[in-house]
Amino acid sequence: MKALRLNKGTLELAEIPLPPTGPEALIKVTKAGICGTDLELVRGYADFSGVTGHEFVGIVMQSPEDPSLVGRRVVGEINIGCGRCTVCISGDSRHCTARSVLGIVSCDGAHAEYLRLPSRNLHLVPDGVSDDQAVFTEPLAAAIAAADRTEISPETEIAVIGDGKLGLLCAMTMAQRSDKVVLIGKHHEKMSTIESLGISSIHVDEKNKFLKHFDVVVEASGSQSGFVTALDIVRPKGSIVLKSTFHGMMQWNASRTVVDEISIIGSRCGRFAPALAMLEVGAIPVERLIAARYPLERGVEAFSHASGRGVLKVLLEVS
Amino acid sequence: MKALRLNKGTLELAEIPLPPTGPEALIKVTKAGICGTDLELVRGYADFSGVTGHEFVGIVMQSPEDPSLVGRRVVGEINIGCGRCTVCISGDSRHCTARSVLGIVSCDGAHAEYLRLPSRNLHLVPDGVSDDQAVFTEPLAAAIAAADRTEISPETEIAVIGDGKLGLLCAMTMAQRSDKVVLIGKHHEKMSTIESLGISSIHVDEKNKFLKHFDVVVEASGSQSGFVTALDIVRPKGSIVLKSTFHGMMQWNASRTVVDEISIIGSRCGRFAPALAMLEVGAIPVERLIAARYPLERGVEAFSHASGRGVLKVLLEVS
Repeated sequence: MKALRLNKGTLELAEIPLPPTGPEALIKVTKAGICGTDLELVRGYADFSGVTGHEFVGIVMQSPEDPSLVGRRVVGEINIGCGRCTVCISGDSRHCTARSVLGIVSCDGAHAEYLRLPSRNLHLVPDGVSDDQAVFTEPLAAAIAAADRTEISPETEIAVIGDGKLGLLCAMTMAQRSDKVVLIGKHHEKMSTIESLGISSIHVDEKNKFLKHFDVVVEASGSQSGFVTALDIVRPKGSIVLKSTFHGMMQWNASRTVVDEISIIGSRCGRFAPALAMLEVGAIPVERLIAARYPLERGVEAFSHASGRGVLKVLLEVS
Repeated sequence: MKALRLNKGTLELAEIPLPPTGPEALIKVTKAGICGTDLELVRGYADFSGVTGHEFVGIVMQSPEDPSLVGRRVVGEINIGCGRCTVCISGDSRHCTARSVLGIVSCDGAHAEYLRLPSRNLHLVPDGVSDDQAVFTEPLAAAIAAADRTEISPETEIAVIGDGKLGLLCAMTMAQRSDKVVLIGKHHEKMSTIESLGISSIHVDEKNKFLKHFDVVVEASGSQSGFVTALDIVRPKGSIVLKSTFHGMMQWNASRTVVDEISIIGSRCGRFAPALAMLEVGAIPVERLIAARYPLERGVEAFSHASGRGVLKVLLEVS
C-alpha cells in the first residue's frame, strides 16, 4: 500500500506492506488530516519513525474482535493502551505508560491506505456527519478536553492564544460554554474567520490592554511568546490551559505563578463521543478550517503546504 | 524604635520613628521569624526597601477601629487590601491588585519594635498557643494553603521537595491529611527530624526510583533543580504545587506537562484561622523547626545565620 513514512527524519511517499494481520481492526482510510504535531514529528519531536498521521475517517475492512464493525464508517481514538494496567482498567488508556499512539509513538499512522487499531478504539460516525467533518473528530475532542480541564460558566472570560487550527477549534468549543471568548491572533484573515462566527478577536500586539484580565487562557500557539502572553493576561487565581505540544525547553517567570496563585494545566487528547455528538448537531463548523486537499500521493507536498505560515487544515484524500 | 531596615540592598539595624498614627492598630512585636522570602528580599527580590519581616506575634497597643483588641496577643495576616475593590469585597484581599504586603510590598514589616496593621488583619492567639508557636502562624497557613489547592485523601501519594523550614512545614501539614507523605531532601539531620515525626524521607539522589510516581508534589525548595525533580516524579494527571517564591526565570520541558496532562498550581499565602486551630490542638510541632534565637539588635547577624545552608527557623526576640 501507499503511505507517507517518516524515515530518519525525512518524510517520503513509500510503497509498504499492509499492516500485519492480528486481532485489531483493519481500516481503509478515506481521509486524513495533517496536524501541528505531525509537522513537529517531521522536525524531530518524539523521535518518531514510521507512517505519520492520527486524524482520519475510514471504513472497517476486517474486525476479528467485533465483526459488526465491518463495512462501517469509523473514526478512532489514537492511544492504544496495554489493556491490563490499572490505568487502562480504569478506562483511560490515554495515560497507560506502555501505550502506543497512532502515528506518534511506536505505531504506524493514518497517512496511508490502511491502518490497524483495536476495535475498542473505534467510534461509528453518525450518518449526518460528513467525511470532511469526521476527520476533525480527534482535534475537536482535544479542544473539548481543554474546556473540560477548568470550570467554565457563560460569564467566564476566556482568551485563546493562537489562530492556528487548534486555536480556532478551541475558541469555537469554548464559545459553546461561555459568551465571553476572545481569540488572540496575528493573522487578520483567520481573525476574520472567527469573527464571522460571532467570536471576538484581538491582535496580540494589543495584549497589554488586557493584563491580568482573563479567568482562563488557553495557550494553543505552541510558542514561548504565547506562553509569556498567557502569563501576562491571566488574572490572579486564574488558569492557563497548555494545549499545544511544545518542542524544546520553555522559560518562564515562576514567581508570577506563585504570587498570583495561577494554575497551569496540561491538556492533550480528549474523548471522541462528545466530539462526534457536537459534530452531529452542527455545533462547530469545522469545514471552515479546511485550507487545502491533496491526494495521498502528493502527501509530501501537502506537508510542505501545511507547514506554511498561517495555513489551516490540509486534508489528504486517500480513497 | 529599633528596626531592621533594607536600604538600597543593604540590611541594617536602624533607629527609626514609630509607624505614623492612623486608623490601623499599633502592635508591639514580641517575636518575629526570618523567612526564605526575607532572605530573597535582601538578594533583590521584589525590589523592596523598608523594614523586613512578616512573621510575628505581638501585643496590640492601640486599635482605633476595634478598641477591644488593645492589650491582646495577636498575629496578623500580611496582605493589606484596598478594602473597596471586588476582590477585597469578596473577602480575599490576598489578591487585591492595590494591596501592600507587610514587610514585602510597600509596607514596613515586623522586624521592628512596633508595626501597624488594619485591625481586620489581626487574629487573637489562643491561650494554649505559645509565642514560639504563634510566630509560625503565617508559614503554617501558607503550608495549609498548599494542601487546600489539591484534592487529598489518606491514600494520596504526596512528595514534598525541599527540607527547608517551608518544606518541613508542608510535609507535616500534608501528613495531617494523607498517610503517604514523603519528604525529598538533601540534609540528613533534617530528614531525621521529619522521620522522628513519623514521616518518611528520601534523599534527592534516589529520585529516579520514583519517576512518574506521586499524585501530588509540593515544590518547596525554590530551585530550578527542585522543579525539574517535581516534573520527574509526578505521575500523569498529577499535580505540582509551587510553594516557594522563585527569583528569576525557570526553564522547563513544557511538553511533559501537556502529554501527561500535569497541573502546576501556584500557592502563596493562606488563612490564619485554620493555622491557629492546628497550633491550638498541638497537631504540628512547629517548635522543632527553631534553629536559633537572636535579639532584634543582632538582627543582621541573625539574617546571616538564617541564610546558611540547611538552617531552619531563626527567631528574633524583640520584647
